[in-house]
Amino acid sequence: MRIEELDTPALCVDLDKLENNLARMGSYVQQHGLKLRPHAKTHKIPEIARMQIDSGAYGLTIAKSTEAAVMAEAGIDHLLMAYPVYGAQKLKRLTEIARKGTHLTIAIDDANTLQPLAEAAAAAGVTFDILAELNVGMNRCGLAAPEDLLALAQAIDRAPGVRFAGLNLYPGHISAKPEEQQEHLRAVDECASSVIQQLAASGLACEVVSGGSTPTAFQSHHVRSLTEIRPGTYVFNDRNTMDAGACTLDDCALRVLVTVVSTAVDGWIVVDAGTKTLSSDRLISGNQRFHGLIVEDPAMQLERLSEEHGQINLVNASTRPRIGDRLSIVPNHVCATVNLHDRIWYHRSGEVLGSWNVAARGCVR
Amino acid sequence: MRIEELDTPALCVDLDKLENNLARMGSYVQQHGLKLRPHAKTHKIPEIARMQIDSGAYGLTIAKSTEAAVMAEAGIDHLLMAYPVYGAQKLKRLTEIARKGTHLTIAIDDANTLQPLAEAAAAAGVTFDILAELNVGMNRCGLAAPEDLLALAQAIDRAPGVRFAGLNLYPGHISAKPEEQQEHLRAVDECASSVIQQLAASGLACEVVSGGSTPTAFQSHHVRSLTEIRPGTYVFNDRNTMDAGACTLDDCALRVLVTVVSTAVDGWIVVDAGTKTLSSDRLISGNQRFHGLIVEDPAMQLERLSEEHGQINLVNASTRPRIGDRLSIVPNHVCATVNLHDRIWYHRSGEVLGSWNVAARGCVR
Repeated sequence: MRIEELDTPALCVDLDKLENNLARMGSYVQQHGLKLRPHAKTHKIPEIARMQIDSGAYGLTIAKSTEAAVMAEAGIDHLLMAYPVYGAQKLKRLTEIARKGTHLTIAIDDANTLQPLAEAAAAAGVTFDILAELNVGMNRCGLAAPEDLLALAQAIDRAPGVRFAGLNLYPGHISAKPEEQQEHLRAVDECASSVIQQLAASGLACEVVSGGSTPTAFQSHHVRSLTEIRPGTYVFNDRNTMDAGACTLDDCALRVLVTVVSTAVDGWIVVDAGTKTLSSDRLISGNQRFHGLIVEDPAMQLERLSEEHGQINLVNASTRPRIGDRLSIVPNHVCATVNLHDRIWYHRSGEVLGSWNVAARGCVR
Repeated sequence: MRIEELDTPALCVDLDKLENNLARMGSYVQQHGLKLRPHAKTHKIPEIARMQIDSGAYGLTIAKSTEAAVMAEAGIDHLLMAYPVYGAQKLKRLTEIARKGTHLTIAIDDANTLQPLAEAAAAAGVTFDILAELNVGMNRCGLAAPEDLLALAQAIDRAPGVRFAGLNLYPGHISAKPEEQQEHLRAVDECASSVIQQLAASGLACEVVSGGSTPTAFQSHHVRSLTEIRPGTYVFNDRNTMDAGACTLDDCALRVLVTVVSTAVDGWIVVDAGTKTLSSDRLISGNQRFHGLIVEDPAMQLERLSEEHGQINLVNASTRPRIGDRLSIVPNHVCATVNLHDRIWYHRSGEVLGSWNVAARGCVR
């Protein structure tokens, strides 16, 4: 079957592009002596996780205990839960995974998160590796004051069922502008180094220093203390990543195939993809306000989304699509788009080779 | 089990509030001699569809052929596809449903949509009722010029496999401000009446005139030509509906239960619900920029969402929640929120009575 025959809307991944993206990241980490633990949030698909392992990753990052369960069942080891997990059901899920032999590392930023985690691990007879979350400027999670971080690391070191393994940091605030970016990276480098030294002075070694996200993934070697990175979006890339200058259109492996369903309003067309297909995520930079890039004619402006309608303003467009014509869209934020779908297709040169279940989405267990 | 024991994030529906919402709409349509064909997009749950039928609806509205298949399998008759369906797989799905005895009505706005639809119906030996979509000012789908609408209605009337049944209109542009609202409703009333008269003069009777959405549902009798309305959101209501003055907080039947997972950044807390739990949908009116209403303290500002993190600014808050505390959120746009989940819970007075599968979401068949 050709991609043109797929029922729309359809998410479709170009395997050649996906493999290129995986190989490029694999080469980068090998060149710089970094480990790679990609964030599975982008795809939530065990088969892609396996491709990541086969191209140089030594484990995966996840944000939810349910994602951890799916990936552990798929045989992925060395899972990093980059999320301050709290709650009895989640801890039960994680101890069960650990009991079956998966190596679990968890990043936390509070002694009140540590306590139930340590108790659950000790009671289950397993050991979690724990990273202390360092706030390097994103101001979302993580401790910024070195004395707070030291206190947490010492509490981890004393607690049963857990082992202090190092630091987790998320430099999601780093600018896309090259000059600012270098300055931000230097600040992250200094911040992390200083904390690592203070921990070392107290006898606490940071075996793991985990950082990195897709926009700055290939700059990670500038933060010298990093031992591993955990980019997510790089597998597919998206309009945000393009806008940040971190990939080209040709690196965008996932496209949303849509059909023109209405041309009744002058100067506009409607395609069969709205917020329930693409998500409402805006371009992070705010540089452009539209809801994705129309590959066939980037001057088409996907200006308004309802739940199932995408309204394209043709004011700058060079073509006038007709009912039944097909277009393909690079979404603003591919992680949010994939999370809306139970199944995505993959192809090579337009020939559909199969589909993957988005097995770790929407899990309630 | 109490709702306090549910793993978070969890979507939880208060059955008392849901039943009140259903009963209120049932009374309204009965009082005004209108039929009710609620839009299933809000819940996508066959069990709630059945409750709607039991409280006065005579059918359902759907936007996708896959939703139609799920609802038809659940025994719901009189489905209105309020979407200009195009594509071989979708037509196959719809003719199969019709062949099994479900009465299907489809709204279209183009002769190029009509042709494959009519051919598929004729080939399958079924008849679709067709509504011509009238653009009453929303400027999304639908024809505005009476002569275009007449031409489409005549084409429907001539085509095999289909029957001209009337008009479909979506007054989604109507203002929430009472004075403007009355004026907009008058304009819609006049627009529809004039078109209906012109069709009648050409011998085409509008058996069905379908309109209405939740914000103006209880004003539908001001558009005198309507025979039925198809509100969706009213089952749960949400912050958008509150903001439009069309419900109170007490009418919001669905809440997202979350847990505080980080308090590391001064003046902020993080809860375990981001865009993958709530959606990125902003408040339609733009009156307020936050991502949902925190029921326990509406002065808490859910200001930033990442995929799994909700960052709440406490600058105006009267309480300082701690790690592990639970909060409940009324989402901005409940249809988008429900669509992210495979299962939602229901309770009465805090006692969890069970869960529903969101059976018609994410369907690829």
